[in-house]
Amino acid sequence: MNYEHNFNPTISDHDIFREMLEEKKYIGYYNLVNNDTSSYIEYAKTVKQTNIVVIGIGGSTLGTYAIYKFLKHSKNLDKQLFFLETTDPIDIKSKIENIDLEDTLFIVISKSGTTIETVSIFKYINSLVTCNKNNTVVITEHDSKLSTYAKTNEMKTFEIPKNVGGRFSVFSAVGLLPLAVVGIDIDELLGGARDIYDSFFNNKEAYHRLMKKARFFTEYKNSFNINVIFSYSSRLEGFNKWYIQLWGESLGKVDINSTRQGLTPIGIIGPIDQHSFLQLIVEGKRDKTVTVIKVEDFDNDLKIPSIKLDGLEELDYIDGIEFSSLINKQADATIESINNLNDIPCDVMTIDGVSERSIAGLMYEYEILTSLCAKFMYINAYDQPGVESGKIILKDKLKKSK
Amino acid sequence: MNYEHNFNPTISDHDIFREMLEEKKYIGYYNLVNNDTSSYIEYAKTVKQTNIVVIGIGGSTLGTYAIYKFLKHSKNLDKQLFFLETTDPIDIKSKIENIDLEDTLFIVISKSGTTIETVSIFKYINSLVTCNKNNTVVITEHDSKLSTYAKTNEMKTFEIPKNVGGRFSVFSAVGLLPLAVVGIDIDELLGGARDIYDSFFNNKEAYHRLMKKARFFTEYKNSFNINVIFSYSSRLEGFNKWYIQLWGESLGKVDINSTRQGLTPIGIIGPIDQHSFLQLIVEGKRDKTVTVIKVEDFDNDLKIPSIKLDGLEELDYIDGIEFSSLINKQADATIESINNLNDIPCDVMTIDGVSERSIAGLMYEYEILTSLCAKFMYINAYDQPGVESGKIILKDKLKKSK
Repeated sequence: MNYEHNFNPTISDHDIFREMLEEKKYIGYYNLVNNDTSSYIEYAKTVKQTNIVVIGIGGSTLGTYAIYKFLKHSKNLDKQLFFLETTDPIDIKSKIENIDLEDTLFIVISKSGTTIETVSIFKYINSLVTCNKNNTVVITEHDSKLSTYAKTNEMKTFEIPKNVGGRFSVFSAVGLLPLAVVGIDIDELLGGARDIYDSFFNNKEAYHRLMKKARFFTEYKNSFNINVIFSYSSRLEGFNKWYIQLWGESLGKVDINSTRQGLTPIGIIGPIDQHSFLQLIVEGKRDKTVTVIKVEDFDNDLKIPSIKLDGLEELDYIDGIEFSSLINKQADATIESINNLNDIPCDVMTIDGVSERSIAGLMYEYEILTSLCAKFMYINAYDQPGVESGKIILKDKLKKSK
Repeated sequence: MNYEHNFNPTISDHDIFREMLEEKKYIGYYNLVNNDTSSYIEYAKTVKQTNIVVIGIGGSTLGTYAIYKFLKHSKNLDKQLFFLETTDPIDIKSKIENIDLEDTLFIVISKSGTTIETVSIFKYINSLVTCNKNNTVVITEHDSKLSTYAKTNEMKTFEIPKNVGGRFSVFSAVGLLPLAVVGIDIDELLGGARDIYDSFFNNKEAYHRLMKKARFFTEYKNSFNINVIFSYSSRLEGFNKWYIQLWGESLGKVDINSTRQGLTPIGIIGPIDQHSFLQLIVEGKRDKTVTVIKVEDFDNDLKIPSIKLDGLEELDYIDGIEFSSLINKQADATIESINNLNDIPCDVMTIDGVSERSIAGLMYEYEILTSLCAKFMYINAYDQPGVESGKIILKDKLKKSK
């Protein structure tokens, strides 16, 4: 039998990579790894206030929160970071009650400059304390209305480049400025991101790892349409939330064939969610991939002491074990029990430690992975047309209510 | 044409209800609405400590946390509740640093009595402070090893009935004792749960609402296998987590035909996640139902002041609006934009206010709904066989590491 074919069923890694190099010329987040940090660091040195309040929502806060939440208990930070990001009145009130507003720097962040939550809260803050160039800084697009406001009031402004989307903006001023102000080493953050950038764009380890993963996630998307991140550290709770935005909002799209796409992100925390979501993973429908994230070194020697509890002697085998070892063994046990089932796709990412480099590398890796999956799925990762109609309806409702 | 059939394609509401009445005889959570609260209230009166630390995980903490998180900023509570629930050493250390352990009551909760996280943390606490009958109380099954420990040390114990599963235990001592101690009105909680109980079991509104919902969720489970709760208040974040455990762990099961079942729970918060997950709901695959939860009355008059911000005049239409009105209009706009699409199943639950009755009613409603869905799916809502193998592997790993 003679046989010929043109089955090159999927786009090649090489094609995807070439497209990415093309995209890198006009999508701004890729090159943020080379962002010049000097203006942020200079500004940070001038900040006298103890409390730093970020007013923003979504892409303006989630990345910053992810990094701050991961690092704050392991660094000696002399300033505290708060986030006002919702219109829930009880949330606003309870947070503000605990902050000395006279000793606070307000960082107002809105890419468009007219985000309704951000402006509402900022107006409310203005009724409590005088906001001026001494206690307020603005991060927005250079020509937004919020930028006009800041200039009129001689407030310091930092720019969000137009070609950097909110959910990809953590390594722009959006994340770097507040993190520098509270004392996080932002050059180390960019160093961690740059490690992944270099490895990926020089066809090293990250290239092969990420291509394989993106191809797997997208080729099997109709079987495994839910991607669970199972983070074995409570410090990664903010990372999980950031991932959910990045993944959900970038990949929930209509593709070039007018077909609805969408890989659904779920973030859970170990070992807590072993007592919750794990049952569904193990016995439920095979519609989920699982990515376990472990922290190699917690840099913490907290230990289970050898204390006898009458009646509970059967648990004495835990005596003397460090909690960091226990939590990592719990992760390993979960991974082993999943792998024993042989039918749940599972990968494990182990980051080095509780450091700037580790969290930034993890986040940059997920940004690249998101872009890759979008390419494989023939969708645009960088827009969010689905949320506009709700905004128009809201505006209409609010105007009518007056 | 003559035509006969035996198509009664699905089990009738009446059959399901009869099975439930049968189940109510041996599954304990249903009748917790009539739980006698006097011993909890008596005990609460004797507590002198300011800090209350619950040591537990999963079903031992999530329900209590849900109620506490919902109510704490709206009540004048004179005690603070903390949860030690993970083996993450940084989490344990950072929480404990902020608590005066000498002025703390420890509530150790484990149904089985040998939960490894709970015993590990309790041992660690024992190395920091002397735990005895004056500062420690235990909640467990009457014949567990933890119960033996408590009796040996003359500590006060409260019982988790054997036939009440952890994730259904919030209206037992597990939830009611710590909540009574911090000053939540637990009789009002049970009153709220009893309202739903009465309405359901007397074939009133809740009966029809819940039957319809359970039938819809299970009949369309192969199309819409993801159930999103979109809570329009940050105060419901704990409720969302509790729901995820209840739904995931109860419904992620193998059915009587050895077929994997599982409705995947997702909890998101409005308006924050309008800037995140909403895009995926609106443009992504049609695999999700959406339940929006609104709070009718936030009992809070925080208002957007009429302050002019130069350049931002186009947003002046928000001036003078109460935040509670804004967040509810944001919910309404989201609902309207989803309903306009005509192909996303969406329901809206509006609870009265930030009160014991409201949150307890909502939680009891979800317990009943979970039981109903399990009945329709021919699965057992009350076990969790899928998490056992990981526990055995862990024990083995820990013993080998010594």
